[in-house]
Amino acid sequence: MTNTTNDHAGHQTWGGRFSESPDARVAAFTESVSFDARLAAHDIRGSIAHARMLSNVGVLTDDEFTQIEAGLNAIGARIAAGDFSWDPALEDVHMNIEARLTDDIGALGKKLHTGRSRNDQIATDIRLWLRDAIDALITELERLRTALIGVAEREADTIMPGFTHMQVAQPVTFGHHMLAWEAMLARDTERLRDIRKRVNRLPLGAAALAGTTFPIDREMVADELGFDSVIDNSLDAVSDRDFAIEFVSAASLVMTHLSRHSEELILWMSPAFGFIDLPDRYCTGSSIMPQKKNPDVAELVRGKTARVNGHLVSLITLMKGQPLAYNRDNQEDKEPIFDVVDTVTNSVALYADMMPHVTVHADVCREAARQGFSTATDLADYLVRQGVAFRDAHEIVGKSVQHAIGAGCDLADLDLATLRGFSEAIGEDVYEVLTLEGSVAARNHIGGTAPAQVRAAAARARAALA
Amino acid sequence: MTNTTNDHAGHQTWGGRFSESPDARVAAFTESVSFDARLAAHDIRGSIAHARMLSNVGVLTDDEFTQIEAGLNAIGARIAAGDFSWDPALEDVHMNIEARLTDDIGALGKKLHTGRSRNDQIATDIRLWLRDAIDALITELERLRTALIGVAEREADTIMPGFTHMQVAQPVTFGHHMLAWEAMLARDTERLRDIRKRVNRLPLGAAALAGTTFPIDREMVADELGFDSVIDNSLDAVSDRDFAIEFVSAASLVMTHLSRHSEELILWMSPAFGFIDLPDRYCTGSSIMPQKKNPDVAELVRGKTARVNGHLVSLITLMKGQPLAYNRDNQEDKEPIFDVVDTVTNSVALYADMMPHVTVHADVCREAARQGFSTATDLADYLVRQGVAFRDAHEIVGKSVQHAIGAGCDLADLDLATLRGFSEAIGEDVYEVLTLEGSVAARNHIGGTAPAQVRAAAARARAALA
Amino acid sequence: MTNTTNDHAGHQTWGGRFSESPDARVAAFTESVSFDARLAAHDIRGSIAHARMLSNVGVLTDDEFTQIEAGLNAIGARIAAGDFSWDPALEDVHMNIEARLTDDIGALGKKLHTGRSRNDQIATDIRLWLRDAIDALITELERLRTALIGVAEREADTIMPGFTHMQVAQPVTFGHHMLAWEAMLARDTERLRDIRKRVNRLPLGAAALAGTTFPIDREMVADELGFDSVIDNSLDAVSDRDFAIEFVSAASLVMTHLSRHSEELILWMSPAFGFIDLPDRYCTGSSIMPQKKNPDVAELVRGKTARVNGHLVSLITLMKGQPLAYNRDNQEDKEPIFDVVDTVTNSVALYADMMPHVTVHADVCREAARQGFSTATDLADYLVRQGVAFRDAHEIVGKSVQHAIGAGCDLADLDLATLRGFSEAIGEDVYEVLTLEGSVAARNHIGGTAPAQVRAAAARARAALA
Amino acid sequence: MTNTTNDHAGHQTWGGRFSESPDARVAAFTESVSFDARLAAHDIRGSIAHARMLSNVGVLTDDEFTQIEAGLNAIGARIAAGDFSWDPALEDVHMNIEARLTDDIGALGKKLHTGRSRNDQIATDIRLWLRDAIDALITELERLRTALIGVAEREADTIMPGFTHMQVAQPVTFGHHMLAWEAMLARDTERLRDIRKRVNRLPLGAAALAGTTFPIDREMVADELGFDSVIDNSLDAVSDRDFAIEFVSAASLVMTHLSRHSEELILWMSPAFGFIDLPDRYCTGSSIMPQKKNPDVAELVRGKTARVNGHLVSLITLMKGQPLAYNRDNQEDKEPIFDVVDTVTNSVALYADMMPHVTVHADVCREAARQGFSTATDLADYLVRQGVAFRDAHEIVGKSVQHAIGAGCDLADLDLATLRGFSEAIGEDVYEVLTLEGSVAARNHIGGTAPAQVRAAAARARAALA
Repeated sequence: MTNTTNDHAGHQTWGGRFSESPDARVAAFTESVSFDARLAAHDIRGSIAHARMLSNVGVLTDDEFTQIEAGLNAIGARIAAGDFSWDPALEDVHMNIEARLTDDIGALGKKLHTGRSRNDQIATDIRLWLRDAIDALITELERLRTALIGVAEREADTIMPGFTHMQVAQPVTFGHHMLAWEAMLARDTERLRDIRKRVNRLPLGAAALAGTTFPIDREMVADELGFDSVIDNSLDAVSDRDFAIEFVSAASLVMTHLSRHSEELILWMSPAFGFIDLPDRYCTGSSIMPQKKNPDVAELVRGKTARVNGHLVSLITLMKGQPLAYNRDNQEDKEPIFDVVDTVTNSVALYADMMPHVTVHADVCREAARQGFSTATDLADYLVRQGVAFRDAHEIVGKSVQHAIGAGCDLADLDLATLRGFSEAIGEDVYEVLTLEGSVAARNHIGGTAPAQVRAAAARARAALA
Repeated sequence: MTNTTNDHAGHQTWGGRFSESPDARVAAFTESVSFDARLAAHDIRGSIAHARMLSNVGVLTDDEFTQIEAGLNAIGARIAAGDFSWDPALEDVHMNIEARLTDDIGALGKKLHTGRSRNDQIATDIRLWLRDAIDALITELERLRTALIGVAEREADTIMPGFTHMQVAQPVTFGHHMLAWEAMLARDTERLRDIRKRVNRLPLGAAALAGTTFPIDREMVADELGFDSVIDNSLDAVSDRDFAIEFVSAASLVMTHLSRHSEELILWMSPAFGFIDLPDRYCTGSSIMPQKKNPDVAELVRGKTARVNGHLVSLITLMKGQPLAYNRDNQEDKEPIFDVVDTVTNSVALYADMMPHVTVHADVCREAARQGFSTATDLADYLVRQGVAFRDAHEIVGKSVQHAIGAGCDLADLDLATLRGFSEAIGEDVYEVLTLEGSVAARNHIGGTAPAQVRAAAARARAALA
Repeated sequence: MTNTTNDHAGHQTWGGRFSESPDARVAAFTESVSFDARLAAHDIRGSIAHARMLSNVGVLTDDEFTQIEAGLNAIGARIAAGDFSWDPALEDVHMNIEARLTDDIGALGKKLHTGRSRNDQIATDIRLWLRDAIDALITELERLRTALIGVAEREADTIMPGFTHMQVAQPVTFGHHMLAWEAMLARDTERLRDIRKRVNRLPLGAAALAGTTFPIDREMVADELGFDSVIDNSLDAVSDRDFAIEFVSAASLVMTHLSRHSEELILWMSPAFGFIDLPDRYCTGSSIMPQKKNPDVAELVRGKTARVNGHLVSLITLMKGQPLAYNRDNQEDKEPIFDVVDTVTNSVALYADMMPHVTVHADVCREAARQGFSTATDLADYLVRQGVAFRDAHEIVGKSVQHAIGAGCDLADLDLATLRGFSEAIGEDVYEVLTLEGSVAARNHIGGTAPAQVRAAAARARAALA
Repeated sequence: MTNTTNDHAGHQTWGGRFSESPDARVAAFTESVSFDARLAAHDIRGSIAHARMLSNVGVLTDDEFTQIEAGLNAIGARIAAGDFSWDPALEDVHMNIEARLTDDIGALGKKLHTGRSRNDQIATDIRLWLRDAIDALITELERLRTALIGVAEREADTIMPGFTHMQVAQPVTFGHHMLAWEAMLARDTERLRDIRKRVNRLPLGAAALAGTTFPIDREMVADELGFDSVIDNSLDAVSDRDFAIEFVSAASLVMTHLSRHSEELILWMSPAFGFIDLPDRYCTGSSIMPQKKNPDVAELVRGKTARVNGHLVSLITLMKGQPLAYNRDNQEDKEPIFDVVDTVTNSVALYADMMPHVTVHADVCREAARQGFSTATDLADYLVRQGVAFRDAHEIVGKSVQHAIGAGCDLADLDLATLRGFSEAIGEDVYEVLTLEGSVAARNHIGGTAPAQVRAAAARARAALA
């Protein structure tokens, strides 16, 4: 917002039946223009569509519409140029623009609000704005998914430990791990497209809550504004905020995914792991410890997940138990929505920038995969192929591992005689299944970590994006 | 759960590498069979599909599969009959069933777990179970929507006050109001169908996290179990809980809608409103106040919304920041999911039962609509049709209302001379637009409250359900 | 923040070990000065105390301290006057002030950060700031409590219906109801005082996480800054945010109370109730409906409760699972704290302004108390005094009420013969207990609604405030 | 609960004014005895105190009281023995006990409910129960704190890396780290004691909402039940649930602390760190991977934090916007409270059991502390002592670190000439400050990590517990 003045105190457009102006603290407490000014371009777009429709159905003349359209476009240009004074005394974006229109084009401006209310107007504005925000977020998600697929292809053969319970479980490839991240974001994209359908419905025409006595043409407005349909019940149209909650839920899942990615980036960059490094330009230092290089972006993304989750709680709490139709509580929907859109879009964009520049220390990853008896399951599977029932094979390998821990060595370091002491079914060929490369290559089915499967999955992911 | 024994203490199936059994408090703290036994039928169904596939790819013989299938079906029958002893020492539903299978059919039972892990098994179970729960919830939602449409048709002409800010705004019809509620639930149904797509994907085959070395056929399993597709990344398959969060988000919206309905039912049944009454069988009384008849169902539904919102927070908090792949934290997903399904399904079902039996006091509703100058907007619209700009018309009516408040009467009680004192544009015909019936009938466009529109909307809603 | 420049890009104070400057998007994503500039006065106060201590223990000379103190005070004065350029490239409030100090007083400014870190510095700043905010909030709470006691005294005899389940339960007095509100806020005050103890502990001296090698005197700093004690573990000192969570929890309860008050004000001002009116200056109107006068302040307060609850969730989510010691996630603590303080303090202040000006329509309240058989419990109690067991008395009155509903009248309208048809124990004196005044006067014990008790309770509440 | 029957269908104690019994689904939806039976002992204790007071003020005879007391005690004994049939048709714990009392001692049982309501009765029960639960939780917290102090004393000299941003920051001692955990729990204990004050106030006497017409003596009841005071407003007494929210907030902080401890235990037990090991009896294995030993207790505690946070959200959402006085929504308070008490108490108890048995691998910890230039700050402080301004010293060390990274060595591995190339102020004695032991020993002030300080802090912590 460029700047604000207070020229209109006491000139609320609804002041006719009031005997005194709002208390100054009340005015400051209730105004929304300090944040809803952000909707100005969409508000103007909606107003022009409304006015065009009014002229089409005969409520305005063609000439009146032309003047209104020109006036609104001029105001839009001034706002875009940062050359517009917002006045909190005019409460909100709608009344600021309408008042200015009337200043600019005269009494004709007072006809614009015919057949609508701020209740359906704000619902229209926020849907238009959010539709654009969803499209922009999807674009960033696709950019990040493309980046992850690129890393996956590059590191399709790089072996690292797969963890469960933060214990080394089985070897996987770094590329496979990247595609797990990509899969989460693919679901996010799919979810956002589903939600967009429910955002993209027109509330305008509901007026305050019951519709209007003017012969409006809602389909015409929907068509001009690119809405898929009109909302079929006026009470619902002005009071529904499902679309906002649903969007913030989906954004919370996006952030949850990025938070999980962040947790891993932070760990992998810790010297305890040492799997990766990030360029200096994505890190910051310490005011006291000269050696520090911290993965702040990842930490902040993890922290900002909490912020988005908090906004989700705000919105579902806000709506619970509200009787129909519009209540002023709903004004509290906008700041969370704006902040969620900014937070999630910026976070995804930064990750899209950063991920291609992650340096993978393949040797460190490989060495870590050798810890923790990561091929023990391969030995059990080997025994099953020799005819041992899986549960018995599991028991045999468990005892072998216990022995190796005592001996301070890996399973592959035990000689054949020792291994056969646990099961006669073990033969010379056992050492092949105990290698890391053998282990990953053997998981060669859809979804498995074999490099060939990772490459095939990356290709499918690229195709899905195209 | 029928009853539990503790025969298997110290016989965990993973005990090979352990030198001591779990501490008793640890066992009690970590067991899950006390709640995941609820998944037994789906667990068995998944195990049979897994075994059939193993026999198809040659890991089991046909005869082995036949015995396993028979053994599992027998166990399923005993569980369904309440004739199965669950043992917490066996940790969870999977190990209870597997151990029993081995007791029943011998060492062959130990082969069942070949090529899978509890990580992909539990993910499969919960998806199968939730898919059924979603279908059942949609059925109840459709029953409630049908009930609301019925009330809407019955009360399409019944005039009541429409409120904004809990102040009387404009007259609407009771039927129109019911269809606003129905519209919310229609969105819920649509949302659940979108989510079902993402629930209905097969994780089995991911094994612990990396896939398996056996030549499994995941598509075959997906096909037998009715899944739409297989999940394309093994790390993602075992660690993803998006589907649960997404479902609980949608359930939270269902409850939010019911909570809003409840708020209105409670108010309308309060003597201050007196719009409706509920049959005694849907109400309860007071232990101290003999006259009380309380709308407890509506109050509890409103309260239980908080419960579902809490579970949503649990789940999104649970997943935030978890590194891949599976961590034991995830065990905490099941109790919230179960409780949400029970709570929301029961709440919707009770409303579907109750709503057709709401008694509407049409005379009280009509009288309330006469309060609060509910046709003031109609007067403003009248002035616009006489050529007054809307904003000026608003001002004129505001002053008329202020005058009527002072005079202690309604706008329709002011004589023509008085009204013309506020605007020369007012004529004799003004009194027609000030009637309640005239007001609602005039809102005659899609989404408007005119009885004809309500009937048309009800017909569209019925068609959408069919 | 007055204005920002970007003169210091690439001059981070931690840049020594870095080979490139932060990426521009990273800088924008990670900077905090856009919000933590609000802590400037407290940051300067803490820095002066730190520098004075350093000079006391010999790390700085007296002259060095004198120059630093003067330099910091000059900067504080410029900030207070709005005459300070904040530079996002300097990241935060601390580095902006330190860089300016070095600009102003030369290389000596580079000594200020000796023996501390931003980790303990920010923890100190936010505790100092929050301590002041708590004190200001308590002042507003006491102002509101005083206002409520005033209304309680004025309306100690005003009879209104007491509700349970939104059904009329028993008559109470308006004053009694006001004191219920006051009691909630008295607990809030008590709670805030408990929390203040845990806020008011000094983290400075913990440095980055382990303490410092300089011979610091933490008690001296605590004493100068008015802290009750020093925090006893350096890792805890820099990572603890309990005090913030605890404060926001308490703020959430304050808002929950105001939200409950708001719900009642909104209902009572609805024409369905008509119990009260608010001055025009505390209400706003509608852009379309000329007659509307809406209780927006109450609605917004109810809505803003959701906002504060969301921030609570953000903070508890933020801290969950963070390893020690400081992580950048913690930067996300400040915006919620600031917003909570503003929201709750403004809400309480507005209610303190508004409540004395609520108009109570005593006649409407009294008439509403006559509905719903509000003295039925009095009849049951009467029967008990005649020797009937309470549970039998309850049954007798229940049947009487059922009869009266059928007859369309109140209990007091039934003649004695009819009443005696339900119980022979009823005598002529029964009609006294059925009056509203008799009912409230009879509840004459501590906590009861009798006017005498309300006056006594108001006196106790005033004494507690004094 | 032992077992439930359904003998009393249609015999609700409030049935007088009702013409039909509750619908079966309504009865199942609204009953609470399936969970509030847990309050039986406290309900009986409260009823006896109430009855004794009634006899004292003359509402019951001494003989009546004696019979009621004996009857209630007999019921209490049967419940404790698991020999009591709970009937959902009797709704809740109160009515089950009262109905049984009347069955057992005859019509006299019907007098027990004189002068009270279930509204004040349940509020009394839950406060009595929660008071005991708080005391039990404090006992477990003190046991865990004692355990942590023990580990701290044992490991006061064990050097490990201190982390910020998961990067090695400065060396600390393991004992110091344990005392950071203890400090969090000490605050929790303090907080619970503050909350206990607000729990321990008597609501009984408020009756339904307005007090009672009987001459009750609330102080006598408070005294017998050990309450600190009576609640001063009847409307507040029955509707207040602050104490529950406040308790759950505090429990959420306890869990947040345990979750942070858990995160560190999980990391430290990962092979990437290898700092500690846990006995087998506190771990579990994998159904597929024979080598796995997982820290499930820590993972579940971290997960259960989400559960408690969810319950907190449920409770604050539940109360928001409820008008006074009692609404049935409040029934939803009990399950969260019970589950929170169980979860947090069990979690703390298990940690108290487990922590003394953590094995610390001191050599691994020490080696890890040598990574990441952990004594770089000591070098900067050294330079300050040579007269370099801190900010310049920071820059010099930053460049030294950059050089050492390039050289692939630690700062202590650089020869003096090289170091002096960065600053002439560096002398031969610099190598002393670069040792781990020198670094920790130098942080020798209150709160610092020096072993002597750790021992002193442990002694203070023990004293505070005593």
